[in-house]
Amino acid sequence: MNDTSAVKDALRRQQIETPSWAYGNSGTRFKVFAQQGVPRTPQEKIDDAAQVHRFTGVAPTVAVHIPWDRVDDYAALAAHAEDRGVRIGAVNTNVFQDDDYMLGSVTNPDPKIRRKALDHLLECVDIMDAVGSRDLKLWFSDGTNYPGQDDVRARQDRMAEALAAVYERLGDDQRFLLEYKLFEPAFYMTDLPDWGASYAHCLKLGPKAQVVVDTGHHAPGTNIEFIVAFLLREGKLGGFDFNSRFYADDDLMVGAADPFQLFRIMYEVVRGGGYDAETGVAFMLDQCHNIEPKIHGQIRSVMNVQEATAKALLLDRDALRAAQESGDVLEANAVFMDAYNTDVRPLLAELREEMGLHPDPVAAYKASGYFERVVQERKDGQAAGWGA
Amino acid sequence: MNDTSAVKDALRRQQIETPSWAYGNSGTRFKVFAQQGVPRTPQEKIDDAAQVHRFTGVAPTVAVHIPWDRVDDYAALAAHAEDRGVRIGAVNTNVFQDDDYMLGSVTNPDPKIRRKALDHLLECVDIMDAVGSRDLKLWFSDGTNYPGQDDVRARQDRMAEALAAVYERLGDDQRFLLEYKLFEPAFYMTDLPDWGASYAHCLKLGPKAQVVVDTGHHAPGTNIEFIVAFLLREGKLGGFDFNSRFYADDDLMVGAADPFQLFRIMYEVVRGGGYDAETGVAFMLDQCHNIEPKIHGQIRSVMNVQEATAKALLLDRDALRAAQESGDVLEANAVFMDAYNTDVRPLLAELREEMGLHPDPVAAYKASGYFERVVQERKDGQAAGWGA
Amino acid sequence: MNDTSAVKDALRRQQIETPSWAYGNSGTRFKVFAQQGVPRTPQEKIDDAAQVHRFTGVAPTVAVHIPWDRVDDYAALAAHAEDRGVRIGAVNTNVFQDDDYMLGSVTNPDPKIRRKALDHLLECVDIMDAVGSRDLKLWFSDGTNYPGQDDVRARQDRMAEALAAVYERLGDDQRFLLEYKLFEPAFYMTDLPDWGASYAHCLKLGPKAQVVVDTGHHAPGTNIEFIVAFLLREGKLGGFDFNSRFYADDDLMVGAADPFQLFRIMYEVVRGGGYDAETGVAFMLDQCHNIEPKIHGQIRSVMNVQEATAKALLLDRDALRAAQESGDVLEANAVFMDAYNTDVRPLLAELREEMGLHPDPVAAYKASGYFERVVQERKDGQAAGWGA
Amino acid sequence: MNDTSAVKDALRRQQIETPSWAYGNSGTRFKVFAQQGVPRTPQEKIDDAAQVHRFTGVAPTVAVHIPWDRVDDYAALAAHAEDRGVRIGAVNTNVFQDDDYMLGSVTNPDPKIRRKALDHLLECVDIMDAVGSRDLKLWFSDGTNYPGQDDVRARQDRMAEALAAVYERLGDDQRFLLEYKLFEPAFYMTDLPDWGASYAHCLKLGPKAQVVVDTGHHAPGTNIEFIVAFLLREGKLGGFDFNSRFYADDDLMVGAADPFQLFRIMYEVVRGGGYDAETGVAFMLDQCHNIEPKIHGQIRSVMNVQEATAKALLLDRDALRAAQESGDVLEANAVFMDAYNTDVRPLLAELREEMGLHPDPVAAYKASGYFERVVQERKDGQAAGWGA
Repeated sequence: MNDTSAVKDALRRQQIETPSWAYGNSGTRFKVFAQQGVPRTPQEKIDDAAQVHRFTGVAPTVAVHIPWDRVDDYAALAAHAEDRGVRIGAVNTNVFQDDDYMLGSVTNPDPKIRRKALDHLLECVDIMDAVGSRDLKLWFSDGTNYPGQDDVRARQDRMAEALAAVYERLGDDQRFLLEYKLFEPAFYMTDLPDWGASYAHCLKLGPKAQVVVDTGHHAPGTNIEFIVAFLLREGKLGGFDFNSRFYADDDLMVGAADPFQLFRIMYEVVRGGGYDAETGVAFMLDQCHNIEPKIHGQIRSVMNVQEATAKALLLDRDALRAAQESGDVLEANAVFMDAYNTDVRPLLAELREEMGLHPDPVAAYKASGYFERVVQERKDGQAAGWGA
Repeated sequence: MNDTSAVKDALRRQQIETPSWAYGNSGTRFKVFAQQGVPRTPQEKIDDAAQVHRFTGVAPTVAVHIPWDRVDDYAALAAHAEDRGVRIGAVNTNVFQDDDYMLGSVTNPDPKIRRKALDHLLECVDIMDAVGSRDLKLWFSDGTNYPGQDDVRARQDRMAEALAAVYERLGDDQRFLLEYKLFEPAFYMTDLPDWGASYAHCLKLGPKAQVVVDTGHHAPGTNIEFIVAFLLREGKLGGFDFNSRFYADDDLMVGAADPFQLFRIMYEVVRGGGYDAETGVAFMLDQCHNIEPKIHGQIRSVMNVQEATAKALLLDRDALRAAQESGDVLEANAVFMDAYNTDVRPLLAELREEMGLHPDPVAAYKASGYFERVVQERKDGQAAGWGA
Repeated sequence: MNDTSAVKDALRRQQIETPSWAYGNSGTRFKVFAQQGVPRTPQEKIDDAAQVHRFTGVAPTVAVHIPWDRVDDYAALAAHAEDRGVRIGAVNTNVFQDDDYMLGSVTNPDPKIRRKALDHLLECVDIMDAVGSRDLKLWFSDGTNYPGQDDVRARQDRMAEALAAVYERLGDDQRFLLEYKLFEPAFYMTDLPDWGASYAHCLKLGPKAQVVVDTGHHAPGTNIEFIVAFLLREGKLGGFDFNSRFYADDDLMVGAADPFQLFRIMYEVVRGGGYDAETGVAFMLDQCHNIEPKIHGQIRSVMNVQEATAKALLLDRDALRAAQESGDVLEANAVFMDAYNTDVRPLLAELREEMGLHPDPVAAYKASGYFERVVQERKDGQAAGWGA
Repeated sequence: MNDTSAVKDALRRQQIETPSWAYGNSGTRFKVFAQQGVPRTPQEKIDDAAQVHRFTGVAPTVAVHIPWDRVDDYAALAAHAEDRGVRIGAVNTNVFQDDDYMLGSVTNPDPKIRRKALDHLLECVDIMDAVGSRDLKLWFSDGTNYPGQDDVRARQDRMAEALAAVYERLGDDQRFLLEYKLFEPAFYMTDLPDWGASYAHCLKLGPKAQVVVDTGHHAPGTNIEFIVAFLLREGKLGGFDFNSRFYADDDLMVGAADPFQLFRIMYEVVRGGGYDAETGVAFMLDQCHNIEPKIHGQIRSVMNVQEATAKALLLDRDALRAAQESGDVLEANAVFMDAYNTDVRPLLAELREEMGLHPDPVAAYKASGYFERVVQERKDGQAAGWGA
């Protein structure tokens, strides 16, 4: 796809979902640093997300998180979003913040707690119905901290049972995206620690169960783009939770730690057909702006994904294939690196102007005065965070 | 299974397979240090393996590796083994040591090389027929060193095609065990890097395709016993290549680096029914005695597996279940650790005497004079190694 | 030191310090699960620590953490401890929980914030004077999340300046223990990421600056016992923050994740003279009992350290030296493993009875009714945690 | 240093040393794949190195490795190099490929073997004298595979003794560069596993002992640029062995696995004054072209270092400092990323033309016919490799 106008067309269609919780305060177990201008309500989070779309043009949806974004009237929340020029995207479940979940939610040894957790998941499907959402995101913190603490296999049985119940409840145009994570907050064994475990569960359930790849949830050295290529081949890649990390699940801005890795991932997405709208691969951000301004951080993140995508689209795939087939290691790598080394910022600036946007989203956002305004408006009340 | 005599019965039935190549010289890319008394032929390797069985009583089979153990008459080789009191176990394939395989074997971009590799795999099934072997072990070094070097997805297509052809060729009582490995010798992407990839391929092929877990082939932090429990639940655990590591695929003696991990693995095997003969889980060693004497090293390794198994069998599963179900984290962990902290060496010494063996296999082996004899007998000729 | 009575004498003298914060609530960024019976004041934390000493006999001191244990009258706090049969040990500083420290404390680009942080450190030396403490524990969360965020080298200059100021303030019988940590909460660069950095700073300052090894603060694969041996050889090992981990800084109970590693560490301590009282190596616990009862968890942890120490002391060092010097790899390893595989629980039970204690500290603690009592007594008020 | 002509001047002065062994065959423990046109003698390796300099203009020296490059007349070898337009750089020692070194070289428990190893190191200083070399590179594979195998501390004593003897022997204008490595070929404990250990030894000896950073020798997650900045601040950074890795010591082409990391390293070099000639930081490649053509691979590697250096030099340090000092996380990171995202290939092409070189070194090398010629000329004889 070397034709610049075709590349631009593809980039124009891109949709990157931002998460409502990225606009609230976040931190580590050591400290949540309070920031200025942080939204206090789900509506204000959506307002902030709308700014990201306003200046980038490619972030039309915002994911919500229940109960952090619990409201009485979800239809009204959806209308609020539309009013701001965006839509509600995935509904994210939360079965990790109740004292009952200390030893697990859907895999808890106690059946009453499992039932409570399942009820929450099903409630989230109700909310999907109300807001018109396609994707239910399932992340389970379930696991154990000590060898012997609970029965590894029994927990899989319980996991399978809960997933089947959720699957059953999904509507025709709905699906769930099943996340996996190596560790944290469980420190010995996580019930869904890797893509293989999520894949195996999804495979048994059917096409509405898909795997979601959070780019910060792997063991050191894991080749994430391999997983992407493999899942696309199997028709089981539901989407991404994008972020970046140097160490563990650091939740830094996507592309900040290893921009070359992000490019390799986007290349496999394009290569495997995952960029085509009909495959339904969801491109979502899931980050924590612990020390940087949040809206600005989201804009930068969206731009990072755009840049990696542009490079992946520009790659000369015919030349690459020719070099690969002839076994020319250095030439194949050179074609690959040529795309990566291209400075795509001018192309993206041009594209934005064609889309009626400012070529520099960060500058435009800063000039808009939005941040200064919300710092004033949101002085009082309780800033949103992971707890609320 | 707290009844000591039942534990002993179970331990008496244990079968740990040693690999012919462990008796030859091995090393790192930096140096293969030559040792004394190293076998020069497949027959001499079997002679050494027979010593391990002679003193431990639980190592009745020896795995062969083709072409390192290529002979003209495989039936004669099998007879030689029987003559020494052992049998030939798994047949290990080798598609990584021919100059043709520089860019891969079954996933090579060149179809002629893929064909050559497949022919070797099929030849190994012929050898299985000749020696009466049940298990074909498939390890592929296939992968790439540089991003872009080859097409990740096309290589999966080629892998699937080769595996299907091998599967087709298997006899009714034969199966293949598909290994995975994170890296080495491929340094960017390995075509089967993790259990999920091996599992997905095996699942499509059917019950004669099973996953084998090499305990040194994972990313740092991987919870191996989880994989064991998961695969047993899926009926897809074919067996183990046991060894241990502090860093990468160090191939140290099993249990040397993390004896607690080995215990946890053996516990999940017992818990998941993998110790029952009918599940067909193969317990194989795959190690490199780079700096230690090889027969002695194998005896020690077999003993390490025995000790971990004994502890796993002794674990008070009723007490564990009760603690787990009541959510008593510390009590459950304590029951687990009690089994691990038990010194099972006296029990095993007793068992050996009941089996007509010396209670201390290492002392008995040293006293036998075998090593001194082969040092003399094998002075001339070419010591066996990975290359031959 | 194979003489059992000598080993017992050594074990009788052991002193393991427990941390006041281990008795309060802790958790991950996802959730702090509230437990029952948690202390509400520094005094109640000391009460709980005294229970650990009461039943183990080897935990006579408790570390405090400022500001979590801030009181008006430190002499009174010290008297309270003595009244309960324990003493106050190390004073732990905290320059990571004020909003001012978002971009660092002593390495913050803003000199006013650096001054504030330094003032806190100096205040902690005042508290040491008041409670009669020898050790000041310095852990800095300082670092950066993004490449370019701050100047790596300038931050070292600022670190050196702060450390020098603290060193200068120390009394003749006081010292500071300088901690290092690979990551968390900083996710790109930590200002003191490894033992080399702490060592280099301490070396320049003099003998009252010592390195403390937190066993959970290393990169995957790091050989911690090497660091212990190296620092002891250099006279720079100040002590330990014991805990264990499978992944990152999981802060599990010491010995829970890798008991063999704990044994290897204790062996190097004994080998390097670090167990002799005059070397001043401090054995401290630093753990988070996120899901298990806290006092019980501390007792178990103390016992784990005791068991590893007993094994290290029992090791036949003459036999080990002989095997090492003759280059007998397997014999040397066998001597090492013999000590590890010994079940030292009977020896420790015997020792406890000789010390007038119950042979089973956990059973004795459970039978004491202490937990049930504090659950009642501490129903109201604010449970202590990392924030208070 | 935003002034393009100043940047070009700096780039013109760059000197990147290539290693003689990169031109010979290399591989993994599984297989050394033979390539065509591989040199058979030290002289031919120098011929190949000269090609890299010919087309890049910044690779004027070639490191030698003893005994792989052992010749009778070192003065003649130096003259041969000069004749080809290059010079001999660092002398690399090898005390890992003799059967005597199975349990170590300078830290071997056997004093006779230690003496033998030391003699080799001293012989290498003789060679330095003969070829006019400034740098002696010391890498020790010394370590142990099993806990207890040898005494950790005694090995440090032996290491210190050997290093002191070598230091003593160095001429006034000579120095040694002391390498460290986490693991391989030692799999439990390496005697110099990290920068801290090398640094501590070098510090005691004096200014002629410097640390060398091999970019592939660290634990996962290690922040290498931190080490670079720290060592430069201490005046102890002797140089680099450049290569790249996704997993362990993969020895891929520098910049191939993580080009952003290479940029960050080069930025810290520039920031810390390490790019100034007087600091004496040596920029060396140490790679294994297992599957790619070797001369071509070296050219590409040199270009990768050049590109990272150009970006580091172009970084707007005033803007960076301003953002850092004001605590503007996102702006500081943006300035940093702007430099990285710049496509410096046009600038480097321009520079090459100014230097009288072809703008595209790879194309020029391919067009030269050199490879085709040596494939013919070197058909017979024994290709050079790690063993010879």
